[in-house]
Amino acid sequence: MKYQRINIFLLLLALSFLSACESETASTAGSENRPPNIIIIFADDLGYGDLGTYGNPTIRTPHLDQMAAEGLKFFQFYSGASVCTPSRAALLTGRLPIRSGMASDRYRVLFPFSASGLPSEEITLAEALKEQGYQTGIVGKWHLGHHPQYLPLRHGFDTFYGLPYSNDMLPRPNAKWGPARKYPPLPLYQDTAVLDTNPDQRLLTKQYTEKAKAFIDAHEEEPFFLYMPHSFPHVPLFASPDFEGKSSRGLYGDVVEELDWSVGQILNTLKEKGLDKNTLVVFTSDNGPWLTEKQEGGSAGLLHQGKGSTFEGGMREPTIAWWPGRIAPGITQSLGTTMDIYATAVKLAGGSLPDDRTYDGTDLSPVFDDPNAKVRDEVIYYLGAQVFAYRKGPWKMHLKTLNPYIGEQPVAHDPPLLYQLEHDPSERFNLAAEHPEVLEELRAALQRHLDGVKSVPSVLEDIDQSYFE
Amino acid sequence: MKYQRINIFLLLLALSFLSACESETASTAGSENRPPNIIIIFADDLGYGDLGTYGNPTIRTPHLDQMAAEGLKFFQFYSGASVCTPSRAALLTGRLPIRSGMASDRYRVLFPFSASGLPSEEITLAEALKEQGYQTGIVGKWHLGHHPQYLPLRHGFDTFYGLPYSNDMLPRPNAKWGPARKYPPLPLYQDTAVLDTNPDQRLLTKQYTEKAKAFIDAHEEEPFFLYMPHSFPHVPLFASPDFEGKSSRGLYGDVVEELDWSVGQILNTLKEKGLDKNTLVVFTSDNGPWLTEKQEGGSAGLLHQGKGSTFEGGMREPTIAWWPGRIAPGITQSLGTTMDIYATAVKLAGGSLPDDRTYDGTDLSPVFDDPNAKVRDEVIYYLGAQVFAYRKGPWKMHLKTLNPYIGEQPVAHDPPLLYQLEHDPSERFNLAAEHPEVLEELRAALQRHLDGVKSVPSVLEDIDQSYFE
Repeated sequence: MKYQRINIFLLLLALSFLSACESETASTAGSENRPPNIIIIFADDLGYGDLGTYGNPTIRTPHLDQMAAEGLKFFQFYSGASVCTPSRAALLTGRLPIRSGMASDRYRVLFPFSASGLPSEEITLAEALKEQGYQTGIVGKWHLGHHPQYLPLRHGFDTFYGLPYSNDMLPRPNAKWGPARKYPPLPLYQDTAVLDTNPDQRLLTKQYTEKAKAFIDAHEEEPFFLYMPHSFPHVPLFASPDFEGKSSRGLYGDVVEELDWSVGQILNTLKEKGLDKNTLVVFTSDNGPWLTEKQEGGSAGLLHQGKGSTFEGGMREPTIAWWPGRIAPGITQSLGTTMDIYATAVKLAGGSLPDDRTYDGTDLSPVFDDPNAKVRDEVIYYLGAQVFAYRKGPWKMHLKTLNPYIGEQPVAHDPPLLYQLEHDPSERFNLAAEHPEVLEELRAALQRHLDGVKSVPSVLEDIDQSYFE
Repeated sequence: MKYQRINIFLLLLALSFLSACESETASTAGSENRPPNIIIIFADDLGYGDLGTYGNPTIRTPHLDQMAAEGLKFFQFYSGASVCTPSRAALLTGRLPIRSGMASDRYRVLFPFSASGLPSEEITLAEALKEQGYQTGIVGKWHLGHHPQYLPLRHGFDTFYGLPYSNDMLPRPNAKWGPARKYPPLPLYQDTAVLDTNPDQRLLTKQYTEKAKAFIDAHEEEPFFLYMPHSFPHVPLFASPDFEGKSSRGLYGDVVEELDWSVGQILNTLKEKGLDKNTLVVFTSDNGPWLTEKQEGGSAGLLHQGKGSTFEGGMREPTIAWWPGRIAPGITQSLGTTMDIYATAVKLAGGSLPDDRTYDGTDLSPVFDDPNAKVRDEVIYYLGAQVFAYRKGPWKMHLKTLNPYIGEQPVAHDPPLLYQLEHDPSERFNLAAEHPEVLEELRAALQRHLDGVKSVPSVLEDIDQSYFE
């Protein structure tokens, strides 16, 4: 007994010295005037129900669970769209894709036959942070234009390692859809040069992780912005030999468990370097699970539908904000969107949003201070160039719905469907008949939004006609 | 800077003394030969998706989240049935309800007009632990027989505070179902006496909590078994004024948040008394959410269907085992059932299962030692007296299914439906056609189980005929 007491005493004594040393290191790295580093880890097609900390039974995500335990776990955080390209445009411009021309009803994302990309007039988060003296890097999937003038180095990033678009955009001689048969080999870029074509996708997550760690290594003395949009768990699924066959969830689980490992590598690197106290890391995903891929797609948990849908499963994402010492561990029910990450990051960097254009994001810092703070009251759910649904407070109305990827046409609803999302997160009970006054209020609020949207031509519709000849 | 270092040092110095004191207290309470206390907290109709740590977005469960962070969180843990009475019989006898006569296709649970209850030949967990010198108490809902000879004090409990059956079994003059119109006032018991009738249900959770704390107070010097089957979130829902209107999920959320508070009260009481290191606490529920109650019912998260169903949503429950110092914090995908709690508790108490009858549980201690340990390979899903589904390893076959509480008749499936639950937890992809060999294996394994089941008359069918006259 006495032994035990003395041991605990000595252990804590040792810890107290370590802790004192650590706080000195952190202080050196985080000197008074240095703004925080920003890291965004962006999964691809990960569902609300795919992490252990959001209830997934057979995918082990110990590092993300730990990140949630140390950070702030969001339950009502949204991507800017339910598919890839517009979702990424929203995150990196802080604006709804409809404002940047990155929304279309004809082509929902950029394809290898697309002729265009994110317009140069847009100010990406990389450009905004560069203006504040940040070093900027992207490791992973771009998907905002693969022609030279649209690649990341033309949009504010100092370095780029990764793919120009999705990992299923490679030669598919047996594809049902004609243009997909003519896709060129998938290029892997380093900055502006093609390093390799059709790279071994089993190694992508590991390579992204190494490159991300190297980026942190290279910039530990200066503020940096690292954008890490993973290629997975988008299909086709690939895991490295260390992970393949290791999860009980099958290949999808292997892939997510490798992503989880990668997140652990990034957070541990920050801790080892004493940068954790001066780095905001946000983990989220571009859109919900690709349900028609069956067991190779993920799960939206208790939310309805998935990728491509404006039901909650399409756009509400597992999201964790982590910044030890600045963000207290906890949970929040506050609304947030990826466009708020933009506004938050610019503010933290000491900048401000230019007043020559409309932004759709809000600084989330008040939620970091107080998880009960409400900084946002509405979510606008675009599918392509049209508003399909609108949320204000707990209420959401669906003007149109679409069960995606099964060839269904949009169904218009008049009166709109109305759900109370806080009571009914699974969108099961349509309350339109009981609450016409709520519908009126939502229609009016949506109209105010629509009045503020200036129509711009969609660049997603600029295509290379030769693909179709 | 120097100040900060000294402060941290002093703080840790103080903590080291506190910690030393605490460990002395724990050691006094947990003397060498004393077996651990056992506490089972059993929610009523709580769904797999109703806690924050299982992904619920708008019900705050900080105490259960903390319990999960400090304990072992199960993702594949099952109740013994998808409705109340047989589920409780399974937990308290360690045997499938079919073996004790607590299963019937005609009456799924005991009603106020039932004439019978749990047979006296059954050895409840209270009786088994009493034999090992435990003090035994139940606080909450019994539902294993309300006539005097079936009440808890006749089944091994020293004390009883609570309701004899469900909180909706009270006079219902407007009920659709004739017998329900004649229900007597709902009695609240203290031991064998009726304390009150039609008690104010808003106060039940608080009263249960006080009684449970008083039980712990009274027995801190001796090993005890506390069984705490809450009345909620079974409908009708009631929360105390401290909780009503406080959650964003509506009344259902208020009620679950009060349950969460109650769990926190129990765990904190154990910590304050230094009993935490010598008490196994298991939190789980009797069956899944009552989905036809709409917003007054819960959510099964990513699982299919709810209460009354043999799809996963009916019987897989949020489950946490907590025993600081003995069970390391973590998660497990290992299978478990409430009948395993029985076997585990008897073993921990130093007893052994009698060999004059068949038990359906397995000691879970190996999973406490190693969350990857597998102690169970099968789950048998009875609905009433019939096997509707059977799980072996990751595979589950449904011989029959029923969408409960909508008046549907069971649908037989030949060939059975076949799901790979680890890959497909939501039971979306029937693989029967692809894997006839798996079906064969499961049929054979199920037959071995059925060969070992001796038919006993159902006591649920003993009714007081005067109700129907």
